[in-house]
Amino acid sequence: MKLFDGGRAPNPRRVRVFLAEKGIKVPLVPVDMGAMEHKKEAVATRNPLQRLPVLELDDGTILTESVAICRYFEELHPEPALFGTGALGKAVVEMWQRRIEFNLFGAVAYAFRHIHPAMKEWEVPQVPEWGEANKPKALEFLRIFDTELAGREFAAGDAYSIADITGMIAIDFMKPARIALPEDCANVQRWYKSLSSRPSATA
Amino acid sequence: MKLFDGGRAPNPRRVRVFLAEKGIKVPLVPVDMGAMEHKKEAVATRNPLQRLPVLELDDGTILTESVAICRYFEELHPEPALFGTGALGKAVVEMWQRRIEFNLFGAVAYAFRHIHPAMKEWEVPQVPEWGEANKPKALEFLRIFDTELAGREFAAGDAYSIADITGMIAIDFMKPARIALPEDCANVQRWYKSLSSRPSATA
Repeated sequence: MKLFDGGRAPNPRRVRVFLAEKGIKVPLVPVDMGAMEHKKEAVATRNPLQRLPVLELDDGTILTESVAICRYFEELHPEPALFGTGALGKAVVEMWQRRIEFNLFGAVAYAFRHIHPAMKEWEVPQVPEWGEANKPKALEFLRIFDTELAGREFAAGDAYSIADITGMIAIDFMKPARIALPEDCANVQRWYKSLSSRPSATA
Repeated sequence: MKLFDGGRAPNPRRVRVFLAEKGIKVPLVPVDMGAMEHKKEAVATRNPLQRLPVLELDDGTILTESVAICRYFEELHPEPALFGTGALGKAVVEMWQRRIEFNLFGAVAYAFRHIHPAMKEWEVPQVPEWGEANKPKALEFLRIFDTELAGREFAAGDAYSIADITGMIAIDFMKPARIALPEDCANVQRWYKSLSSRPSATA
């Protein structure tokens, strides 16, 4: 088994943090995304969408999409449960994972990819107006999320989950996207600080 | 238990098709999205993101996000499995679900919401350039997907899954988004026709 990894990019990091929380070690194949290596043969023959990460199993089976790769490891190594437990618990993790993905992670990614000059070759065409439109969307969600976090420690309840991983990485991604985390979002600040202090955060 | 439903909108329909495939009946509370009822009290007090569908359990617990609602029912009623079976099977369904969501369903939704005049009040600001940029993205994915479907009956393999539901509804959504399904995508055409002839498609 080997994981084609994209270094500092947010999606590859989601899988690395997930594996660190599970205590699973998978051999990494570094791919230099800055040199557009993910568009070249090693990745493109494995993933026609030319994106990272890509997991290759020993029999050659390919899995792509960060969350699909994480789900594979969750099924093989259920403890600690990072996709929730029980019908309702699993659904609540899925709900928060998706709320955070679409309204924060996605919005921040659009702001970065459609505005940052370094993304010109990556996002064709760049639509700066769309990038700008996403900044208030991210902030609006953060304020809703802040109210929710007032009553609990983690995104989906009392246990750390994949929704927290997606959230922490989205907040980290706000820096290059030039969106400031509002100071009045005290619960998000506390939550983010706590997640960032876990050993897995450096993965 | 009751499901606040949004009629013809794509996301509420995903849950209704899923329930029809499972043979589960849930009382529906119709919400008139055309009259922006999803922004009013009944929905807004249950989902701060003001989106549909919303599932309310008998004890008042709220679940939102179509796929999270589907996952709840999958856990309660595992047969027929619509999220895959076994570690690899579940991961492959997740992979195709996400590939179709981001590259087809999402692209078609952006083309519709950022270009169609009826969406002016819904998508603020409308960025027509972003809507247009998504049309070739949807087509590019359809051609990759067509190659994949050459060797199998369903999106994620030999069994019908939630990825097929997302795909069928995305293709239906291409009509109001004014994107034509390419005639040379024969495998997608065959797959779409087969899905659309299932009794669940009318849900």
